[in-house]
Amino acid sequence: MTKKIKTAISPTRAEDYPEWYQQVIKGADMAEKSPVRGCMVIKPWGYAIWENIVRGMDDLFRETGVKNAYFPLFIPLSFLEKEAEHVEGFAKECAVVSHHRLEQSDDGLVPAGPLQEPLVVRPTSETIIGDAFSKWIKSYRDLPLLINQWANVVRWEMRTRLFLRTSEFLWQEGHTAHATETEAIARTRQMLDIYARFAEEALAIPVLKGVKSPAETFPGAIQTQCIEAMMQDRKALQAGTSHFLGQNFARASGIKFQSRDETEEYAWTTSWGVSTRLIGGLIMTHGDDDGLVLPPRVASSHVVLLPIYRKPDDRSAVLTYTHRLAERLRAVRYHHRPLVVEIDDREIGGARGWEWIKKGIPLRVEIGPRDIAADAVFMGRRDLPAGKKSSLSTDQFVSGITDLLDDIQHNLFERALQFRQAHTVEMTDKADFYSFFTPADRERPEIHGGFVQAGWCGSERCETTIKTDLSVTIRCIPFDGGPSGGRCICCGSAAEKQVIFAKAY
Amino acid sequence: MTKKIKTAISPTRAEDYPEWYQQVIKGADMAEKSPVRGCMVIKPWGYAIWENIVRGMDDLFRETGVKNAYFPLFIPLSFLEKEAEHVEGFAKECAVVSHHRLEQSDDGLVPAGPLQEPLVVRPTSETIIGDAFSKWIKSYRDLPLLINQWANVVRWEMRTRLFLRTSEFLWQEGHTAHATETEAIARTRQMLDIYARFAEEALAIPVLKGVKSPAETFPGAIQTQCIEAMMQDRKALQAGTSHFLGQNFARASGIKFQSRDETEEYAWTTSWGVSTRLIGGLIMTHGDDDGLVLPPRVASSHVVLLPIYRKPDDRSAVLTYTHRLAERLRAVRYHHRPLVVEIDDREIGGARGWEWIKKGIPLRVEIGPRDIAADAVFMGRRDLPAGKKSSLSTDQFVSGITDLLDDIQHNLFERALQFRQAHTVEMTDKADFYSFFTPADRERPEIHGGFVQAGWCGSERCETTIKTDLSVTIRCIPFDGGPSGGRCICCGSAAEKQVIFAKAY
Repeated sequence: MTKKIKTAISPTRAEDYPEWYQQVIKGADMAEKSPVRGCMVIKPWGYAIWENIVRGMDDLFRETGVKNAYFPLFIPLSFLEKEAEHVEGFAKECAVVSHHRLEQSDDGLVPAGPLQEPLVVRPTSETIIGDAFSKWIKSYRDLPLLINQWANVVRWEMRTRLFLRTSEFLWQEGHTAHATETEAIARTRQMLDIYARFAEEALAIPVLKGVKSPAETFPGAIQTQCIEAMMQDRKALQAGTSHFLGQNFARASGIKFQSRDETEEYAWTTSWGVSTRLIGGLIMTHGDDDGLVLPPRVASSHVVLLPIYRKPDDRSAVLTYTHRLAERLRAVRYHHRPLVVEIDDREIGGARGWEWIKKGIPLRVEIGPRDIAADAVFMGRRDLPAGKKSSLSTDQFVSGITDLLDDIQHNLFERALQFRQAHTVEMTDKADFYSFFTPADRERPEIHGGFVQAGWCGSERCETTIKTDLSVTIRCIPFDGGPSGGRCICCGSAAEKQVIFAKAY
Repeated sequence: MTKKIKTAISPTRAEDYPEWYQQVIKGADMAEKSPVRGCMVIKPWGYAIWENIVRGMDDLFRETGVKNAYFPLFIPLSFLEKEAEHVEGFAKECAVVSHHRLEQSDDGLVPAGPLQEPLVVRPTSETIIGDAFSKWIKSYRDLPLLINQWANVVRWEMRTRLFLRTSEFLWQEGHTAHATETEAIARTRQMLDIYARFAEEALAIPVLKGVKSPAETFPGAIQTQCIEAMMQDRKALQAGTSHFLGQNFARASGIKFQSRDETEEYAWTTSWGVSTRLIGGLIMTHGDDDGLVLPPRVASSHVVLLPIYRKPDDRSAVLTYTHRLAERLRAVRYHHRPLVVEIDDREIGGARGWEWIKKGIPLRVEIGPRDIAADAVFMGRRDLPAGKKSSLSTDQFVSGITDLLDDIQHNLFERALQFRQAHTVEMTDKADFYSFFTPADRERPEIHGGFVQAGWCGSERCETTIKTDLSVTIRCIPFDGGPSGGRCICCGSAAEKQVIFAKAY
């Protein structure tokens, strides 16, 4: 019988994964529910991660010629209706603005000044940006048009979870228009590749790249490409999507251009987005039973210095040494930004260390009189067990810190990749498939399942059957999906494609 | 009789200042009206200025310990009502969300799912952030709490002007809570000083710092401090405000803390903001009859290279030289960011040059075969007349470009400062005052007026009289307002303060 190890987060992942997730966020002080239904407050420690994602992604977009702009928060109802599938996809979750002032009445303040045409708070901006594009684009010389916006969007949700599913969330939405179908398809893939690169390199989240089944395609798109990541409960998280919209939205919004041979043609458009959901993915990929684990590339802060002294006489020397070390570290740049260094000189003893572990800071450094005497620091890495700390010379620490951080970054990615590989299986037998996705005890489902690569006949019927029976969906048809052929895991007829099945967020 | 000079913008400032403003924005391709009433589309050239403002200000905030966070877009009606003056100040211009989905009916899509409590799209976030603060703050150890958010806000406007007055705009709002009144007042001023510093150093806009009269104070605040700039039509633009809120919002939201001596006290709070309005101020401070003039520190791009060749044989050599020069320039850093270099190789002859002048880019560089032979460039500066260009060696140009940009930055500030000084007068005589602010021809008012420093008795009656008679308001009571004493410019009784009067945006 193993002794129960004390962990900073209760419950552990194994005990209750969804509750563990909430407790990690609380323990790291990242975000909280707001009194506004479905909306969250992103606290500084969580928001800093988003700022790092924004900065890193924005640079990658820019390198491909994308420019940022800003479009209205509100969309006239009539715009949304222009693309039939699109409005159907979003109608059930739209916040509607109906009035433009408040008036005192006997019942207190009431809405007044009704709008002639109600406005919808943008759930996504294809229609309002399409309207702008229709004015900006006249000739093939205006193409390609490559625009991105960082913004908030609203999709009304009844059941919300911080970062993963909230009524308001922050995201970026890229919108591009092209003269040819080929070019638009290439751009769709180019942006997906950027998402995959950022997820793997900066967030240390391994992802599968592929195409959504028609049933899971963005409302109004011809094709949706996606990156899918495996969380530690073995469920999939869709971490980013890139849509090839064909000429659907161009027709709806009238985005036309004069071609080289002077004919008038509809443009080919794409749109692509990632959101604050990535932070949820980061928590569930790397977090452990002691709390958040931050990949250094997007960490809110990189290192915390913890001055330690028992005798009041030592205080001044320890604090001076600590501040001097902080200055040296702040002069170091790590992936285009200066190291962010925290000094925690609160006199609350051992509780400090655990607070920073829960916050997932990559490096913790203790500095006491004996360390100073040896010109050394006592260091803990968040990717190693909390108790495992090592002493190294201060000079060595400063000169080697970027390597240390890269090593942590690398370890987190490798760990996550191994986890995904360990829980990804190929299957050909339907009974095996059903049993793989069925928890032993339905009352209290333990962590089970994973990613299954299996054949699919291509019919919506089989997709729906599996979804109804098991709450399992086709996550993607991978670009590098191995040999086609084989049999459909559901109906046994010839498989059109090899696809990835999983339960998903 | 002077010959009429051809200008890139029609009308000129003197001919029709408001229309000139619209045409500058159009000519520079910065922004446009959207089909959504009162909302604007900020195009890449305009949005890049905002991104530079965000980056520069954010660094200054951060240096003072402020951390960024994000709060909900929606505010429950009941929150807004907590502070009586506050809700009264904003009730007339609130976008109200009343429903959370759309349904098909015989009349097409209609709002459905009425909300039990309507939500207001944030016009400002004191109440929703106050609610968060009331949970985050328990003890004096949690203070000061220094939070900022970059966000969109909505204040419904019937008469809108791009950047200056739009229903939706982008801004930052800082919110801080303190244990003492003294500390909160000091923070109010500290942030105003940062606004002033940024306006003068980065935007090259000279500003006056001071306090608003009670009538112009933010709804719910004890004191509003502001920076005021003079536009080229001699009107004032309020460019930033910093509010000392006393304990008003702390009482409304229940922001209480345990003090050092274990009593429970209400916190002292502040809030402060600047918005995309700054871009309007920048246009109207520096723009000329050829269009936008961008201060290098916040310019969307710093320099455009214009390859010039007549013979097709020269094309390749000129383009190669141009791209090599661009690479050299992009390696140069100017105020913490790499130079942004445009290459315009469109074959549209002289029109190119004028387009970039209208866009306000600080430096234009022509590169032709003869320049290449001499290893030189032919350069135009946006702060000098369009026709005045000079040749200098390419090496000299590259090594001296940051000095050149600093020189332009400096010139723009000095020019604006001299303009303001030339149109600021002290007055003691009421008739003079009235005539100063009265256009000769009421039908077609020419540019007139300016800033008047004059005595004010402190009564709202005199303030209102002047506002009603002349549309002139007290812009601020300057911190360095010179000697008090003298007589009220309106009623002639003893003046309490020397204040700045002006017409304003």
